Amino acid sequence: MATMSTSAKAAYDDLMHRSRERQLLISCSSLLGWDEQTYLPPGGSEARGNQLALLAGLHHDRAADPRVGDLLGEVEASNLTADPESPEGANLREWRRAYDRQTKLPKALVEELARATTRGQHEWVIAKRKNDFPGLKPALDAIFQLKRDEANCLGNQGEPYDALLDEYEPGANSRDLAALFTALRADLVPLVGAVAGSARRPDRSILRRDYPVERQKVFGETVAATIGFDFERGRLDTTEHPFCSGIGPGDTRITTRYDARNFSDAFFGILHEVGHGLYDQGLDPDHFGAPMGEAVSLGIHESQSRLWENVIGRGRPFWSYWYPLARRVFREALGAVPFDDFYFAVNAVEPSLIRVQADEVTYNLHVLIRFELERALISGDLALNDLPGAWNDSYRDALGVTPKNDAEGCLQDIHWSAGLVGYFPTYTLGNMYAAQFHAQAALDLGDPSDAFSRGDFSGLLAWLRAQIHRHGQRYRAADLARRITGDGPNPTPLIQSLRAKYSALYGL
Amino acid sequence: MATMSTSAKAAYDDLMHRSRERQLLISCSSLLGWDEQTYLPPGGSEARGNQLALLAGLHHDRAADPRVGDLLGEVEASNLTADPESPEGANLREWRRAYDRQTKLPKALVEELARATTRGQHEWVIAKRKNDFPGLKPALDAIFQLKRDEANCLGNQGEPYDALLDEYEPGANSRDLAALFTALRADLVPLVGAVAGSARRPDRSILRRDYPVERQKVFGETVAATIGFDFERGRLDTTEHPFCSGIGPGDTRITTRYDARNFSDAFFGILHEVGHGLYDQGLDPDHFGAPMGEAVSLGIHESQSRLWENVIGRGRPFWSYWYPLARRVFREALGAVPFDDFYFAVNAVEPSLIRVQADEVTYNLHVLIRFELERALISGDLALNDLPGAWNDSYRDALGVTPKNDAEGCLQDIHWSAGLVGYFPTYTLGNMYAAQFHAQAALDLGDPSDAFSRGDFSGLLAWLRAQIHRHGQRYRAADLARRITGDGPNPTPLIQSLRAKYSALYGL
Repeated sequence: MATMSTSAKAAYDDLMHRSRERQLLISCSSLLGWDEQTYLPPGGSEARGNQLALLAGLHHDRAADPRVGDLLGEVEASNLTADPESPEGANLREWRRAYDRQTKLPKALVEELARATTRGQHEWVIAKRKNDFPGLKPALDAIFQLKRDEANCLGNQGEPYDALLDEYEPGANSRDLAALFTALRADLVPLVGAVAGSARRPDRSILRRDYPVERQKVFGETVAATIGFDFERGRLDTTEHPFCSGIGPGDTRITTRYDARNFSDAFFGILHEVGHGLYDQGLDPDHFGAPMGEAVSLGIHESQSRLWENVIGRGRPFWSYWYPLARRVFREALGAVPFDDFYFAVNAVEPSLIRVQADEVTYNLHVLIRFELERALISGDLALNDLPGAWNDSYRDALGVTPKNDAEGCLQDIHWSAGLVGYFPTYTLGNMYAAQFHAQAALDLGDPSDAFSRGDFSGLLAWLRAQIHRHGQRYRAADLARRITGDGPNPTPLIQSLRAKYSALYGL
Repeated sequence: MATMSTSAKAAYDDLMHRSRERQLLISCSSLLGWDEQTYLPPGGSEARGNQLALLAGLHHDRAADPRVGDLLGEVEASNLTADPESPEGANLREWRRAYDRQTKLPKALVEELARATTRGQHEWVIAKRKNDFPGLKPALDAIFQLKRDEANCLGNQGEPYDALLDEYEPGANSRDLAALFTALRADLVPLVGAVAGSARRPDRSILRRDYPVERQKVFGETVAATIGFDFERGRLDTTEHPFCSGIGPGDTRITTRYDARNFSDAFFGILHEVGHGLYDQGLDPDHFGAPMGEAVSLGIHESQSRLWENVIGRGRPFWSYWYPLARRVFREALGAVPFDDFYFAVNAVEPSLIRVQADEVTYNLHVLIRFELERALISGDLALNDLPGAWNDSYRDALGVTPKNDAEGCLQDIHWSAGLVGYFPTYTLGNMYAAQFHAQAALDLGDPSDAFSRGDFSGLLAWLRAQIHRHGQRYRAADLARRITGDGPNPTPLIQSLRAKYSALYGL
């Protein structure tokens, strides 16, 4: 930067100090949250809730402190942040965004949302078990009304839904997303149809044999460490729902769950969380506590998990290295299974009803359906009463399957009951970005297959570190993709890679 | 209480709210500290230090807030706390004590102590490894000088050491302690001598056979659960140094360490921590966050651990129930060992150099030596230069053994290097109180041997809950003992029970 007034510099430093303190508070909450999912004794739940509420309150007081607004104004009036892609420029941009979002929401609304979504999640568990959408409807009604209020408080340049989307994917808007998703759908539906019409069928029972949990653990950890997850700066534990928690520099924790009769669930779950974990481990620790040390968006985060889980982890070069070891480790299950049969089984495509069990081709159709429905629910084009019917129609149209009941239909995900509206599209953005980054890495580095077949993933990881991880929030998601690939989010590389892979597998 | 002005009640409620918030902050730190010892990846240490420092700062700001002083004054001027043993009276007494201690210490001194003891602990590790007392001396000199400064800031009614002792054992003073310890020593030294002169010797090698770690875990957890440790509201994990952390209501975590060639270390370690854990689990959750919901003192806490570890856990009735199971679980090690041989082995007495490995008879002599030495170091009667010689003289006099070097002499404990001066005596206070409580329980409940021999420990636990745990800090330690047993701390029950038990074992 050119020149800098002393007071603007002092204000910037003050903002940095506050940002680091807020992030430390968040990191304490992250550890408490991780422990809640892993080791907390059942009797400690209530006290844990009190601890988390206290830390959330301390964080809120700091984030909404009017002094932050004054400091932001001081720095903005200087030329300290003239370069929006300098660390100072990027940090200030994101501090401003966070402060505005924080202060635009009345405290009463935030508290009402917290209550409504706590109730929503609790009632969702019951409604799903009892297949009782009407039972959940009052809670969902309240949540969607509050989310509309939230969107209106936040403001937007297109439609209210965009303000919600922006929480998870800063800078994205629903008009652009809808165009991308329409294009993706136009190519995916015929591909799924062609696969369904193929006479070739993988033997998926291969993956449902005896896979002793202890050996799954050893195999999963070996792969995780080999592709670069640093166990000196991270852990892998077992939880009911897998997740990745980047607690702070040097402390990234991933989890998975094991089923002794299912190879895929834990293994690809580990690869997925390792992808998230590698991103967190690749953030610049010197920027910890500031936007420059944080992940860009959920879409970019998901691109890293999907890249390792699907693009790499379900690829032929990956398994040409790992399959011989898998066969030795799981001799009873895989000893007599030829490579091609195993490879086909981990890449089986089949239209289904449940998103979290979907393959990488049909998965995006599950997401597209949710995006359209939640957008219509927020705009008011769709009434909650009509959700189950609209859901079932969408599944029939896009995937050719129809839920028997709401439990395997519109009640399957907790997201809306938890107030997560605008979150789903980031899954498919992640898939698109993953394919774009992978295609670009192949251009920059040459065909990575050879290295992968030798068990060497370091070239790709170094590329991801340099191109993505180290930048933190220097660029918004679409700008980052544009810098790396010349393009914003784009469905073409995803559809091309899926078409190439599955044409070969299914003989299309 | 009789009457209460509105404003005193409001001030009391405000103090309660602040107390709960401070305790919640401490409970967050406790969880972070537990995680640091159990699951934190090595790379996360620095960030963990930053988190803990932030929480400690937030706690300090609240504890030393002058508004707390005003509120205390308001309530003290009312008759709200006229009954010192009412919840209000007890809470206020302890809030006042904590506030005064907090505000009497200049911030610079607190920070200097934190730095000096961080350095001290680091240098202690090196000095102990290198057997280099002169290397540690400058750090220890600084710490003892700062502890003297601390004692002078805090003030006292006897000698400066009392102000330090009061941190761990509120209300205790060194003159009374010295009298108790002198009496104890007068009886212990001849007992140890008589044991040493006995021709009977247990076969301690019994406990050094193969004890597979997994079976030690199962056996230890079975015993812990049977005597009442609630695993729904607690956990048992493995760490290098065993401890108990009462994180909050419903969340009490104990740890131990396992050695596949040592039965005693893990097993009696578990019993010890279970004793601490039962106390924490027995505190009244309705009083969480206030003194009425906290442990009385380190001495009383230690009485609970020593009671279960030694008085019960090394007793004949306890093993008459558990030994048949132990024999089946550890068949290779114990299958051919008669009950009496095993019982004698877990009660072997032998003068030794290392406190943490000492038996229940000689253990107190180790503590008495430390009490005398640290008291003299604080008063200036002993110079640090003379510590190694004084240490060795004391061991020769009390136990008849002499350290080969300082590593197994005055360098063996980390306490002084960590600034823990006045802490050691609480170990022996715990042993005295344990014997007193046990004797009283036998009077109140009748001989508990029968129940113990049937594996029923619920009567004793219920008695401890009602007599001790549920009261929190309603009474100071000596007053609590007096209420229960008619006596303050008293060495007689301890010496009587030791003499009875070891006369029988060693044929004295």
